[in-house]
Amino acid sequence: MIELYHCADARSFRALWALEELGLDYKLHLLPFPPRVREPSYLDVNPLGTIPLLVDGETRMTESAAIVQYLATRAGPNELVVAPGLPDYGAWLNWLHFGEATLTFPQTLVLRYRMLEPPERRLPQAADDYAQWFHSRLRHVERALGDREYLIGGRFTVADISVGYALLLAKSLKIDNGFPPQVAAYWERLKARDGFARAKEAQKAGAAPF
Amino acid sequence: MIELYHCADARSFRALWALEELGLDYKLHLLPFPPRVREPSYLDVNPLGTIPLLVDGETRMTESAAIVQYLATRAGPNELVVAPGLPDYGAWLNWLHFGEATLTFPQTLVLRYRMLEPPERRLPQAADDYAQWFHSRLRHVERALGDREYLIGGRFTVADISVGYALLLAKSLKIDNGFPPQVAAYWERLKARDGFARAKEAQKAGAAPF
Repeated sequence: MIELYHCADARSFRALWALEELGLDYKLHLLPFPPRVREPSYLDVNPLGTIPLLVDGETRMTESAAIVQYLATRAGPNELVVAPGLPDYGAWLNWLHFGEATLTFPQTLVLRYRMLEPPERRLPQAADDYAQWFHSRLRHVERALGDREYLIGGRFTVADISVGYALLLAKSLKIDNGFPPQVAAYWERLKARDGFARAKEAQKAGAAPF
Repeated sequence: MIELYHCADARSFRALWALEELGLDYKLHLLPFPPRVREPSYLDVNPLGTIPLLVDGETRMTESAAIVQYLATRAGPNELVVAPGLPDYGAWLNWLHFGEATLTFPQTLVLRYRMLEPPERRLPQAADDYAQWFHSRLRHVERALGDREYLIGGRFTVADISVGYALLLAKSLKIDNGFPPQVAAYWERLKARDGFARAKEAQKAGAAPF
């Protein structure tokens, strides 16, 4: 049985969403955010103290965008994966990484320096710099989407989960004003998916997000 | 023919190193760093303005850790890849992402707020916070390495390129004091590889790194 350690609407939401879209069985461990502060015993389970942790037999993973690729590939042939050798394979890998490294990490600066740090350690300049970074990179998503429904191959894949989570985080951080039009429509499509709704339902016993 | 847009010792070094390890033919475009400032015509090639850009027929990729997975998978059966279904597959994907999202992005804060920004916009606190972050995450690499030669499966894979580049960047930024002992030995092993040396040689006509 796959086990997922998760905080409501944190990066681990990617893994939860993928589990629901793929219809895999799993056991969910809901933790308060940030777990390293509010549930220190979690450090015995994951010495990094970060969320997510996915455990699947001997496999342990902590990188949310890697987890969605792993889960989609592990689930056997399905529409959420793009196989090596297909024309979209490189673009698919690129979006998986782009969602986290380029669209999500910058937002964690906003979270940290605008909200989590005590007032004397807040850095409005850094928070503003990286909010701006996020919005400039979002223009790349806008260009790529054009009039497509999803990022790759005319169908929903886990690459949309990687990028879609960055849009969810922007909502949580209230830096979602000014989503360009195609991105805004894409976000509405993602939110309307049954798998997204089931993931939201599965986490609702958890603490309120940051 | 694969084309790679690259700045000396920037993230695109991952792609260059993988090309050399895999023995693939490629054409290298060397640019000054940062290209969006020092070679604005690059924006016509890559509107993001970021490095790397890899072009392989219709495939265009900008995320360095995704590129090394793509190249290793594209090259046909070889030792640098871990296939889906093998026991180490999840761990391998995790290291590919960890090298960039967890070990490299934090260092870009050090680069930006200690070196690249004009003096009045420098933020020593942010630079120090993320140098500390990098070192704390490096302890995870130390634990994982133990007495292993490489991260996965007893052999060199492109996951070592993803993580190894983060160590190269730490050297460039002079935040490499205090590499834990296994990490320090691992870095020496990586540097001693022929593929690493060939990649360094291939970029030597380029501008000095930041």
